[in-house]
Amino acid sequence: MSLVVVGSVAYDGVETPHGKVDRMLGGAATYISLSASYFEKVRIVAVVGDDFAQEDTDLLANRGIDIEGLERVPGKTFFWKGKYSPDMNDRETLVTDLNVFADFNPKLPASYLNEQYLLLGNIQPGLQKAVRSQMKGVKFAGGDTMNFWIADFRDQLLATIRDWDFLLINDGEARMLSGENNLKRAADKIMAMGPNTLVIKRGEYGAMLFRKNDYFIVPGYLLETVFDPTGAGDCFAGGFMGYLAQQGFDPKSPNIERTVLSRAVIYGSVMGSFCCEQFGVERFRTLTRAEIDARFEEFRKFTHF
Amino acid sequence: MSLVVVGSVAYDGVETPHGKVDRMLGGAATYISLSASYFEKVRIVAVVGDDFAQEDTDLLANRGIDIEGLERVPGKTFFWKGKYSPDMNDRETLVTDLNVFADFNPKLPASYLNEQYLLLGNIQPGLQKAVRSQMKGVKFAGGDTMNFWIADFRDQLLATIRDWDFLLINDGEARMLSGENNLKRAADKIMAMGPNTLVIKRGEYGAMLFRKNDYFIVPGYLLETVFDPTGAGDCFAGGFMGYLAQQGFDPKSPNIERTVLSRAVIYGSVMGSFCCEQFGVERFRTLTRAEIDARFEEFRKFTHF
Repeated sequence: MSLVVVGSVAYDGVETPHGKVDRMLGGAATYISLSASYFEKVRIVAVVGDDFAQEDTDLLANRGIDIEGLERVPGKTFFWKGKYSPDMNDRETLVTDLNVFADFNPKLPASYLNEQYLLLGNIQPGLQKAVRSQMKGVKFAGGDTMNFWIADFRDQLLATIRDWDFLLINDGEARMLSGENNLKRAADKIMAMGPNTLVIKRGEYGAMLFRKNDYFIVPGYLLETVFDPTGAGDCFAGGFMGYLAQQGFDPKSPNIERTVLSRAVIYGSVMGSFCCEQFGVERFRTLTRAEIDARFEEFRKFTHF
Repeated sequence: MSLVVVGSVAYDGVETPHGKVDRMLGGAATYISLSASYFEKVRIVAVVGDDFAQEDTDLLANRGIDIEGLERVPGKTFFWKGKYSPDMNDRETLVTDLNVFADFNPKLPASYLNEQYLLLGNIQPGLQKAVRSQMKGVKFAGGDTMNFWIADFRDQLLATIRDWDFLLINDGEARMLSGENNLKRAADKIMAMGPNTLVIKRGEYGAMLFRKNDYFIVPGYLLETVFDPTGAGDCFAGGFMGYLAQQGFDPKSPNIERTVLSRAVIYGSVMGSFCCEQFGVERFRTLTRAEIDARFEEFRKFTHF
């Protein structure tokens, strides 16, 4: 039961209080796929330019990720550059060169079409909708979005998430989408827009999962040093969906597996925390499933009473 | 094993997006005592003016709080007035009339001196130190402070908390006191100043408890409407210490009761959440221990996995 991941693959330039990297592998689909690959087979859909390095393709392939849907076209790969504030709670975008990503039109290889789990990274909502509609037999589908689409593509976004089983956004986006400052009220309004399952990410403060008349909240993992938060939210998404796919999660099952959903939120949190420990995707070059499971147990230790 | 509570008893004027009250019972010692009274016998030490209403004295006495240490002197009771921002994450102080509180010099009745639990509300650190030194046989003592004392009375504050078993402050204060932005590092530095137990309150995001090589984190309770956050931190403190006193918590016991400490953090969170449901101390006019225990179980439900 593979997980199909659609989104950006990019090169990033990042500056944090701990250092600076001019160009390194990045992009939502990259982070999501690497993170989810620790749980379940991933099939990626993305576009890169002819400058995309073999070693970066290899990193994905070596994690067992199916790269049949990683399209290579003439031109340059999407490039983003940003700089974080001293406390790393804010970041400033310095460069956004969409390059080949400007014309991204996700093409699903035939071998992907019958998969049951779909995670749509933050791209134009119309493209997300087109992908979703191609995967007729999908069991659990949804994704991410961002402030830009919420503000300027609202109708298209609403038409897109109407068909989603889950939406995974941050607290600021939840407030913006719902028009409610209070997250409980925001969650109720957003679930009325379509998704039965809503995950709200709160950065260092953790994450919340909402379903009808039920919710689960986990605090953030307490890292002593946050090296680079880039990609942490996408790694959360990858851990969350990777675990659900691994468990064969079925939202239509008569006994909704609340335990499985809450554990998926913990695995998401675990993966987001590892992501911050080094620049870019570096942590995933050495990370093992045993480390992931050990941190999962740490979450139990510091939250149970 | 009663709990001695020292701090301000005041009248407050409060404006929130949900309404406005010109004058109502308030003050840190009031909130702490009312909250703790659901768990253990409380003995209060505070000063009020001759304008202090009988019905307010009665509210405390009716909750079984020993008011022998509630000194009444000529003059007016401390008055504070504040206004909250629309999202209630900030507040502006409009009036601070210290009145009789300006000369507050806590006097412990003889009957209080042998109690084993002491909670010092946010007052001048020198006064906190003087109270602590009078209670020779205390088992678990500590308290709260604020940005003003951290900035302008730092040496006196450090000399005070050196003798404390616990310190209970918010995240901004922890960062200010330690000079560390990261809360794990901040906690390590603060514990090196004296207190073996540190509780960091994070407002809507919950609370953290630190001890040497151990920590516990709980997210905040998700209220649909926060009516008035005034006193929530003090109610947290009251629930935390009230529960520990009720359990006869002994920090020098060979088996430190980690479960008891983490449950104390949950009871603190429960009491802080109830406090926000109505203006001022109103919620404590009707709140029952059964409601408190039911919310404690809710915390288990939304945090365990």
